[in-house]
Amino acid sequence: MRVGRLDEQKRCRIGVVAPASRMSPEVAERVPAVAGSLYPDRTPEIFFHPQCFATHGHFAGDDEMRTQSFLDIANDESYDAVWFARGGYGSCRVVEAVMCRLTEPSRRKAYVGYSDAGILLAALYQAGFEAVAHGPVAQDILRDAGEAAVGRALAWIIDRAPEALEPTVSRATKTAAFNMTVLSHLLGTPLQPDLDGHVLMLEEVGEALYRIDRLLFHITSNVAIKRVSGIMLGRCNGITPNEPNFGMNEEEIARY
Amino acid sequence: MRVGRLDEQKRCRIGVVAPASRMSPEVAERVPAVAGSLYPDRTPEIFFHPQCFATHGHFAGDDEMRTQSFLDIANDESYDAVWFARGGYGSCRVVEAVMCRLTEPSRRKAYVGYSDAGILLAALYQAGFEAVAHGPVAQDILRDAGEAAVGRALAWIIDRAPEALEPTVSRATKTAAFNMTVLSHLLGTPLQPDLDGHVLMLEEVGEALYRIDRLLFHITSNVAIKRVSGIMLGRCNGITPNEPNFGMNEEEIARY
Repeated sequence: MRVGRLDEQKRCRIGVVAPASRMSPEVAERVPAVAGSLYPDRTPEIFFHPQCFATHGHFAGDDEMRTQSFLDIANDESYDAVWFARGGYGSCRVVEAVMCRLTEPSRRKAYVGYSDAGILLAALYQAGFEAVAHGPVAQDILRDAGEAAVGRALAWIIDRAPEALEPTVSRATKTAAFNMTVLSHLLGTPLQPDLDGHVLMLEEVGEALYRIDRLLFHITSNVAIKRVSGIMLGRCNGITPNEPNFGMNEEEIARY
Repeated sequence: MRVGRLDEQKRCRIGVVAPASRMSPEVAERVPAVAGSLYPDRTPEIFFHPQCFATHGHFAGDDEMRTQSFLDIANDESYDAVWFARGGYGSCRVVEAVMCRLTEPSRRKAYVGYSDAGILLAALYQAGFEAVAHGPVAQDILRDAGEAAVGRALAWIIDRAPEALEPTVSRATKTAAFNMTVLSHLLGTPLQPDLDGHVLMLEEVGEALYRIDRLLFHITSNVAIKRVSGIMLGRCNGITPNEPNFGMNEEEIARY
C-alpha cells in the first residue's frame, strides 16, 4: 500500500527539519533551484524550518526545539513530506518525545533521510507508518553528484519513483536499509525494528575497518536480526586508516 | 566467595594472552622486571604466550590461534591467572569458541583486563566465574605511570588486594565496570551481562563527545540496564575533537 501519492494537480509541499546537526545555509538556496529545474511545471514548495539553521552546541537547536520543529511539519496536514536536512548526530535525543506527540496527519506523509535519521525512520516504521524511505538528505546537495542525489529524493517524494530509492523498510519488498552504527545503537532498545524476513542493507561512512567488523559482530549476534532473510552490504565510504592494516576489506568482513 | 587465593608458599603463575591486538615485544621484558622489583621474595612467574607476538592483519594471530592460546592458559591447572596482553579489538571474534571449549580448571583462576577484553570478562561472569576483574593490561607498562598500573594488576592477581582494582563485576559489592563501546556492542546479544542491582561504572578512551552521548543513549535505553542501581562515570581519556564544539562535557552528558 502506498500513501500520500500526489494528485498531479496539487503542488507538493515538503518541510525540511534537522533533528540532528545544523544544515548549511546555502542548502536552502541550492536545493529549491535544483527542484525548479527538475520540475519546471510542478515545482515542489520546499519549506526550510528556521530550526534547520539554529545552533545549540553540537545540535541544530536544543532537544525541545528539534522535537517541536519535527512536529510542526509532521502534524501539519498541508505538508506531503518531512525531509531530513542532514544526518550527523542527535535524533536519539528527540525520538521518544516526537513519537509521543505525533498526531493523525503525520501518518499521511512521506519521510526521507538516512544515517542518524535512521533512528526516527525506524521508530516511524515500528509505529506502522508506510512511506518511510532511506534516501538523500537536503545537505547532500553540497557533495559530489549532489544534484543527482537530491533529484532522487525528490523523485521519490513527488512521484514515489520506484527506481529512485531504497526503502528504509518496506513491507511489500521486505527490505530494510540502515547505517551500521545507527542500527547497532538500536539493538536491545525498545526502538529495535522488527526485521524478520527482510533483506537488510547495511552501509557506513567514515569508520575504520575494525569498527565495521565490530559493528557487524554486534548486528549479527542479535537473536532477532538472525531472522532476516539476508544481508546486503551497501556503500562503505570514507573508511579511515586502520593501524595496523586490517587484513580484509569490508566485503570480506561482511562475508565472514 | 573468593577463588584462587594463593598459598603464600607457592609462586604465582600468570599466563598472558592477546585475544585482540598484538602486544609490543618490549612489554615481555619490562613487565617481569617490574614484577621482580615489587615482589623480590615471591616474584610471580609471568609467561607470555608466543601468540601475543603473532600478527594476522589487525589481530595477534588468526581467530583460531587466539582462541587456542586463551584456552592453553585458562584450561591449564598450573596457572593462577589469565592476564590480557592488551585491548584493541578482536575478543568478540573468539568469545563463542572460547566459552564452548573451557574446562574445569578455567574456573579456578583469575582474569584481568579491560577495554576490548570486557567482552570475554562479561562472558566469563555470565558463566559464573568468580575472579573476573576490570584492571590494567600488560601493555599498560608502556603508558605514563605504567609501572603503577601494572603493580595494581599484580597486587590483585597475587593478593586480591581489595584496593587495587575495580572488579569488572562482583556479586559481593554489586559493581560492574565497562568500556562504553564494549557494553554497547553486547546489548541485545546473548552475551549481554545481567547487571540488575549493580552500580555500573562506564569509561571510554579516544572517542568524540557526540559518540559518548550516543553510547550513553544506547546503554540507558536498554530495559535490562535500566535495572542497575546507579551509573558512575569513570575516566574518559583522549577525547577527540568535536566539530562543532559539543556544548557539554562528559560529566554533563552522563548527568543528562
